[in-house]
Amino acid sequence: MSQDATEGDLRNTGMSLKHDREWDYELDRIVEAVEERDAKRVGLQFPEGLKRRGPAVADDLRELCDDNVTFLLSGQPCYGACDLDTYLMRRTDVFVHFGHSPMKESDKIIYVPLFSNVDPFPILEEAVEDLPEEDVGLVTTAQHMNRFGEMVEWLEDRDYNVHTRRGDERLTYEGQVLGCNYASADIDADQVLYVGGGKFHPLGLAMEHPEKKVLIADPVNNVVTVADTEKFMKQRYGAVHRAMDAQKWGVIFCTKIGQGRMEIAEEIIADNDDAYLITMDEVTPDRLRNFDMDAFVNTGCPRITTDDGPQFHKPMLTPGEYRIAVGDKPLDSLEFDTFHGTW
Amino acid sequence: MSQDATEGDLRNTGMSLKHDREWDYELDRIVEAVEERDAKRVGLQFPEGLKRRGPAVADDLRELCDDNVTFLLSGQPCYGACDLDTYLMRRTDVFVHFGHSPMKESDKIIYVPLFSNVDPFPILEEAVEDLPEEDVGLVTTAQHMNRFGEMVEWLEDRDYNVHTRRGDERLTYEGQVLGCNYASADIDADQVLYVGGGKFHPLGLAMEHPEKKVLIADPVNNVVTVADTEKFMKQRYGAVHRAMDAQKWGVIFCTKIGQGRMEIAEEIIADNDDAYLITMDEVTPDRLRNFDMDAFVNTGCPRITTDDGPQFHKPMLTPGEYRIAVGDKPLDSLEFDTFHGTW
Repeated sequence: MSQDATEGDLRNTGMSLKHDREWDYELDRIVEAVEERDAKRVGLQFPEGLKRRGPAVADDLRELCDDNVTFLLSGQPCYGACDLDTYLMRRTDVFVHFGHSPMKESDKIIYVPLFSNVDPFPILEEAVEDLPEEDVGLVTTAQHMNRFGEMVEWLEDRDYNVHTRRGDERLTYEGQVLGCNYASADIDADQVLYVGGGKFHPLGLAMEHPEKKVLIADPVNNVVTVADTEKFMKQRYGAVHRAMDAQKWGVIFCTKIGQGRMEIAEEIIADNDDAYLITMDEVTPDRLRNFDMDAFVNTGCPRITTDDGPQFHKPMLTPGEYRIAVGDKPLDSLEFDTFHGTW
Repeated sequence: MSQDATEGDLRNTGMSLKHDREWDYELDRIVEAVEERDAKRVGLQFPEGLKRRGPAVADDLRELCDDNVTFLLSGQPCYGACDLDTYLMRRTDVFVHFGHSPMKESDKIIYVPLFSNVDPFPILEEAVEDLPEEDVGLVTTAQHMNRFGEMVEWLEDRDYNVHTRRGDERLTYEGQVLGCNYASADIDADQVLYVGGGKFHPLGLAMEHPEKKVLIADPVNNVVTVADTEKFMKQRYGAVHRAMDAQKWGVIFCTKIGQGRMEIAEEIIADNDDAYLITMDEVTPDRLRNFDMDAFVNTGCPRITTDDGPQFHKPMLTPGEYRIAVGDKPLDSLEFDTFHGTW
């Protein structure tokens, strides 16, 4: 695990804050960058769940910086490190992206991952009761990376053979997963322990690795469950079947900096005279309803296809599912769509 | 009226099209530009109401152009000439913006205004019955500009003294109005005849010029009505009153190319410690709900404030209305917010 991953630990901050909060926003690191660069405009981008904290963070920064510094809050939707507000980034002297770890290092961007201060060990006690085998994979999200090393040790102390790896260059840390990338679970164990809040990440993990048992230890909601992908997989097969009759295909290229796969989109267009290339940043049911298509292929974020699919008026497939629907590949080749590389 | 304004007349197109349509998409002009520039990528942007025509237009262009030309349809929402898909524009060799007249001339952009082929004169016959005075202003939208000269003559033949002007540099044609600019109605007549479909433009016109009678001759829906702003004006006063108690203000800067008013936004921020600058392209209720504010000031498109205001969870004001709500200006200074200049 990188040294950086401990920097955000709440216990390390000595600053007195105007507003109480659960997260360490690493204000000292931001203020230092503002002073170093003599910045006049500072952009602050938060993911959806943390946007309402933005004004308080801006308040604290205003107090710590010169009066002539203007803080701009990004109002663009944000769902990951793939999803930088490039407009704001290009127009500010310092640009801070909160809540995600770096997908690609850049001098232009300060990433503040917002590590959780929740204690994962009580829920791990419960989880190990459902991990019968000696070999276990361990993965978590950026928020819990500050405790990853401790978690590995804790499991080893209990005689587990813990398998971890850094997935690929899209990921910052060893053991880290993203909603679109589970390469850190490509390990030699049939059971994988996921530590983190919610089911979004472990469901993707279980779809990407259907041969493994994925155990969820959720220290936020304090529950242990096994990831169950049945509902999602049924929806995927259903969408593929419904799209098999499609004549007109809308092929979506997502313009978000970390979600573009133009080559895949252009390959589809080149092969299919009834396919149309559509570019957009946010892929929403409203936007697609304007196009008179029978089905869509989404080359952008696979989680929109998988998780939001039923909200769209026409079937939306991943590029792999499209190949099945048009008969290029057999039905049993259906697999979870993942993203690799950066930009 | 400019010579260009007749180019889109449906009767002038001799091309045989794969798809029937009501509009002239000026394919010859687009094909010429593609060939001249040896373009490999061509971007096509349609406003919301015409997006579903995009694939058919792309089909026709594919047939007329070399196989190695890729056509990309913009899936971004589009509500005006102020609202160019700059991402697509910067990544294509030819970029075509349909449905609006040029807000600013540029070699990069081919504007295809899509002139209407509807006959305005039957509804004008009806309208003149409700135009008792000799002096009358005449305005219309880009779609009907191809008949503007004829309409002026038609009214003059009926002994009207017709007042027309080109508003300002934001507008392309004499007599043209935009949803945010009614400078073409700054004329010496107490009655203004608006010719065009829907009530969006004449309601803005009547709010901007409350001293004038605005008669709507709608040749699309075949009705004559007088613009009634009462509902909207009540909503504006209501929003201002509800915002008078606001502590925390979100000040929205719209990042769309033709909707940015950063100076106005920064002035508000500079004066008010409880105001926060928020940047975004689409200003929607969902996006603002993420911010814990008591009220918003929208420095972007005034029609979002005026027409969509009630859909937002907190009062949203124009910059002028904000000055009233915080006590800088008297209540009776309330007026319609307009946009001038380009970018």
